[in-house]
Amino acid sequence: MEAVARAKELEAQLERAEQQLQVVQKISRFMVRELSLAEILKGINKAVVDFMGCDSCFIYLIDGEELVLCSSNKSPAAEGKVRLKISEGLTGWVARERRLLSIPRHAFRDSRFKRFSNLAEDNFEAFLSAPIIARGQVVGVMNVQHRAPHQHSGHEMELLTTVTEQIGTLLLLARVDPKAIEAANHVELLFPAPAAT
Amino acid sequence: MEAVARAKELEAQLERAEQQLQVVQKISRFMVRELSLAEILKGINKAVVDFMGCDSCFIYLIDGEELVLCSSNKSPAAEGKVRLKISEGLTGWVARERRLLSIPRHAFRDSRFKRFSNLAEDNFEAFLSAPIIARGQVVGVMNVQHRAPHQHSGHEMELLTTVTEQIGTLLLLARVDPKAIEAANHVELLFPAPAAT
Repeated sequence: MEAVARAKELEAQLERAEQQLQVVQKISRFMVRELSLAEILKGINKAVVDFMGCDSCFIYLIDGEELVLCSSNKSPAAEGKVRLKISEGLTGWVARERRLLSIPRHAFRDSRFKRFSNLAEDNFEAFLSAPIIARGQVVGVMNVQHRAPHQHSGHEMELLTTVTEQIGTLLLLARVDPKAIEAANHVELLFPAPAAT
Repeated sequence: MEAVARAKELEAQLERAEQQLQVVQKISRFMVRELSLAEILKGINKAVVDFMGCDSCFIYLIDGEELVLCSSNKSPAAEGKVRLKISEGLTGWVARERRLLSIPRHAFRDSRFKRFSNLAEDNFEAFLSAPIIARGQVVGVMNVQHRAPHQHSGHEMELLTTVTEQIGTLLLLARVDPKAIEAANHVELLFPAPAAT
């Protein structure tokens, strides 16, 4: 009987690991496809919501001293409109401290929390948040929220860390001049041609 | 008894899935670190060799009409020196056809095979190869070889596909002007500011 229970537990762990792998691979695939940044953020948002089983998932990007909501699974009308000051709130704290933040319950009671809008998510219990970093700079924050208390697993924290790294990379890629690539000789990056004489 | 065997099999599958995830996450992390392309290719090579248990792993990048060996787990002295014509051999075939190629045994007898050098790998039995693609262009090929016959698993093929996508992305990133990023406002990529009046 014990072995049966063990097999069942392993099956669940395997399914979870394969789901996590699928999310990371899916986002990796976004990097080689010709999609708009808006489409990509939407796809990432959906993949993270499916994996986490969370009630809300927000991606904020930095604009000067503010964080602008750029992707939301629930409130698309708020995209581009909701703005938070970097100096305020849990999201601002994550951007300033450049650290993953996991609050399993009573997130809205946290002294760093600040009600910034009329979004229903302001009352959610569990809050998981990671900075989006590109070339060493914080360029945004990604938040995952559960309405009910939720103890974030190591795998969930690891996934959010990887996903925010991938978003940082996708933001850099959006800046690459396509023509620069067509003309590029990648071998020369590794083995520079001898200087012409 | 059956449940015990099942648990054992599941344990092995779980370990494999976690290893695959680690490889993909490790390479994803290369994208946000300040490393040289040579260091990155070396790190990728090692991660793939560890996962695949293969005897050789080569990364070729395109230079005009040739493929140049840019990373090798076995023959670092050959890096930058071994050159294959795109019109020839299994590696050239993969670059031209833009397709994953899996040959579990007798790879060296394949009519597309061409002995190009004195590398010992010319006699290996099993050959798994994928094109490296950046922005829709083939920019290289990655080869994994086993000395003995080896049936490539679906996970191995999937991993090589993801890794070659990641290499394509890393080559693009090597072209990004660091200053362009510091000045960039990523929000404007999504929500362009209204034209000044």
